[in-house]
Amino acid sequence: MRDTYVLGISMTRFGKYIEKSLQELAYGPIWEAIGESEVDPHDIGIIFAGNAYGGLITGQESVRGQVIMREAGIGDIPIINVENACASGSTALYLAHGAVASGEVDLALAVGVEKLFCGDTGQSLKALSTSADLEIEGRMGILFAGIYAMRVRAHMEQYGITREQLALTSVKNHDHGALNPHAQYRERTTVDEVLNSRMIADPITLLMTCPLGDGAAAALIGTKEMALRMEKRPVKIRASVLGSFGFPGKDGPSIAARVAKRAYKETNIEPKDVQVAELHDAVSPVELYLYEELGFCGPGESGRMIQERKTWYDGPLPVNTSGGLTAKGHPAGATGLAQVAEIVWQMRGEAGERQMSPLPHIGLVENGGGNVGGETAVVAVHILEARE
Amino acid sequence: MRDTYVLGISMTRFGKYIEKSLQELAYGPIWEAIGESEVDPHDIGIIFAGNAYGGLITGQESVRGQVIMREAGIGDIPIINVENACASGSTALYLAHGAVASGEVDLALAVGVEKLFCGDTGQSLKALSTSADLEIEGRMGILFAGIYAMRVRAHMEQYGITREQLALTSVKNHDHGALNPHAQYRERTTVDEVLNSRMIADPITLLMTCPLGDGAAAALIGTKEMALRMEKRPVKIRASVLGSFGFPGKDGPSIAARVAKRAYKETNIEPKDVQVAELHDAVSPVELYLYEELGFCGPGESGRMIQERKTWYDGPLPVNTSGGLTAKGHPAGATGLAQVAEIVWQMRGEAGERQMSPLPHIGLVENGGGNVGGETAVVAVHILEARE
Repeated sequence: MRDTYVLGISMTRFGKYIEKSLQELAYGPIWEAIGESEVDPHDIGIIFAGNAYGGLITGQESVRGQVIMREAGIGDIPIINVENACASGSTALYLAHGAVASGEVDLALAVGVEKLFCGDTGQSLKALSTSADLEIEGRMGILFAGIYAMRVRAHMEQYGITREQLALTSVKNHDHGALNPHAQYRERTTVDEVLNSRMIADPITLLMTCPLGDGAAAALIGTKEMALRMEKRPVKIRASVLGSFGFPGKDGPSIAARVAKRAYKETNIEPKDVQVAELHDAVSPVELYLYEELGFCGPGESGRMIQERKTWYDGPLPVNTSGGLTAKGHPAGATGLAQVAEIVWQMRGEAGERQMSPLPHIGLVENGGGNVGGETAVVAVHILEARE
Repeated sequence: MRDTYVLGISMTRFGKYIEKSLQELAYGPIWEAIGESEVDPHDIGIIFAGNAYGGLITGQESVRGQVIMREAGIGDIPIINVENACASGSTALYLAHGAVASGEVDLALAVGVEKLFCGDTGQSLKALSTSADLEIEGRMGILFAGIYAMRVRAHMEQYGITREQLALTSVKNHDHGALNPHAQYRERTTVDEVLNSRMIADPITLLMTCPLGDGAAAALIGTKEMALRMEKRPVKIRASVLGSFGFPGKDGPSIAARVAKRAYKETNIEPKDVQVAELHDAVSPVELYLYEELGFCGPGESGRMIQERKTWYDGPLPVNTSGGLTAKGHPAGATGLAQVAEIVWQMRGEAGERQMSPLPHIGLVENGGGNVGGETAVVAVHILEARE
């Protein structure tokens, strides 16, 4: 296995694009990623297209990647449509990385796209609900906000996490979103506003949840030789680990903990080495138990961590400087690649008003999706490293 | 890249299973493939699940593979959902082969499953139509029978292929289906019956089309060392090539010709070396132009080839001994893996009443899917070789 690098990466601003098709959304990021990579697009050897709900929302099923690439004017090479719920974009990246790492191709494109806003919230929520196991969660009539609420509530009760601490995750991510021109929500909020907004699934309030939205992102993955020929700071994919629901038992480690452990082990990177992270805050309070599961703090210490503002962009371990799913938005298929984009931009010094200083060397992305077998169905963890 | 082998392969009989879920259909083939492979299922390193229309027909979207594997009792490892229309199963196989060939894992599972029969033919046809580009073919209101009819008609006019020759492809495949206990249709037919059956899209008649149906198939792909430990005859994957619609121009080679050419070139196998083939006869007459595109005969010679019965199971180059999509059935996500199952069974001498003699050494599988950019969206070609 050889090293792989992010040569080019791009995303649309996330938001509501009811008039645009999947292929119109994806066109810009695909060609921007190719453009900044300084490679010949004819050298792309394989394409992985991540999308979760296109069939249910737009009617275009099963050849979505081909339709996207027909619009982009690229064909003939293998195009593979991948779905893994809200981790579809990361799954495309996992396979693109693998194709280059194995030597199968020198250059692979990962593209992620989603249209979730269709003017009918019921239809959008119904599409999202199909990422749970219909025979189990489906028959219970439970939606994702409810699943997250149960986990957050258990975490609160176990460690005495407070509602104010939960709300601070949303305040932080909205602070970051206000600084990110790619974010769907660009307004700041306060603890009071968050706690007084409409209750969705106790303790999750409206301002803790991510919006429905649309968007696309693309990343071009290539070899070290290609990366060294670029002017931009090379960003290496140190680890790309994908895991699934298991059967961990009541007190076993969560899927995020298991997948992150594999990524740390593969790289000899420890949680304390991570300088910036993008985490899957589909509802912002999940950040807290993720801090613990990923080893950013000890068990039960996450509430204090957010209260001490350690994970704001100017803190010691910035988390979701993009605004996270909560403020940047969460067009499912695009999310994982957009998370990587934020880390790459922070490493290159291209993060504008939310830029960390000094530039980070080691970053982590955690992207989750679906719910099967009593836990998150899919978690992808990528560890990125910028060369000096 | 190292050699990969089909260690275990299995499929359900194709048919109508309205009472069964995707996961109930997939359970048997998964465990049968594991059982005959004589490996420890804990050694499986990655799973690729191919399904095209589950979201539209059953409502289960985006985590279909996870739900299938939860039912099968296997989790924790990467599970990746792939879609490539009617070539979804072959795409799962392509990735499973790649994961083992690259050394990423020693053992990979490819599973394909589909439920297309839902009691409402309109809903099933609508689901199938989403494998074309909705903005182009979709706005023309054209379904796949119409797309195939135009290609078959052009082929007839170019080379003087007759309606009787078209009908013979259906007669042959129904003859084979009658001998295959896994086939959805097990009744023979005649040229007169085929030509007098209802016209679907001139010159395609009802008895030339594949049925709507359900089914599942699974293949376990592993290393040479594992294959040599088995009692069954080892079957090597010599080539696994995936191609997409390109922009070949009016007189350029078709996607099937381009993909097959790459497979022949990679392996130094020539068309004349192929001893058995399974081709994507979603409507049976496409077999004829495929014979020519794959090099089984010269341009315009396919009509004579079928008339001389050369591709019956007891002829010199048996094609679709399983009955093909026409008679065996075509639950899209399962089709590519079921095609491979037939070749493996012929090579092992496990094909029952339709068994070729002597056992073939070299076999080819061609599986197509969708329609984008004016041609088939995806074609996968696999070349299999059985060791002496």
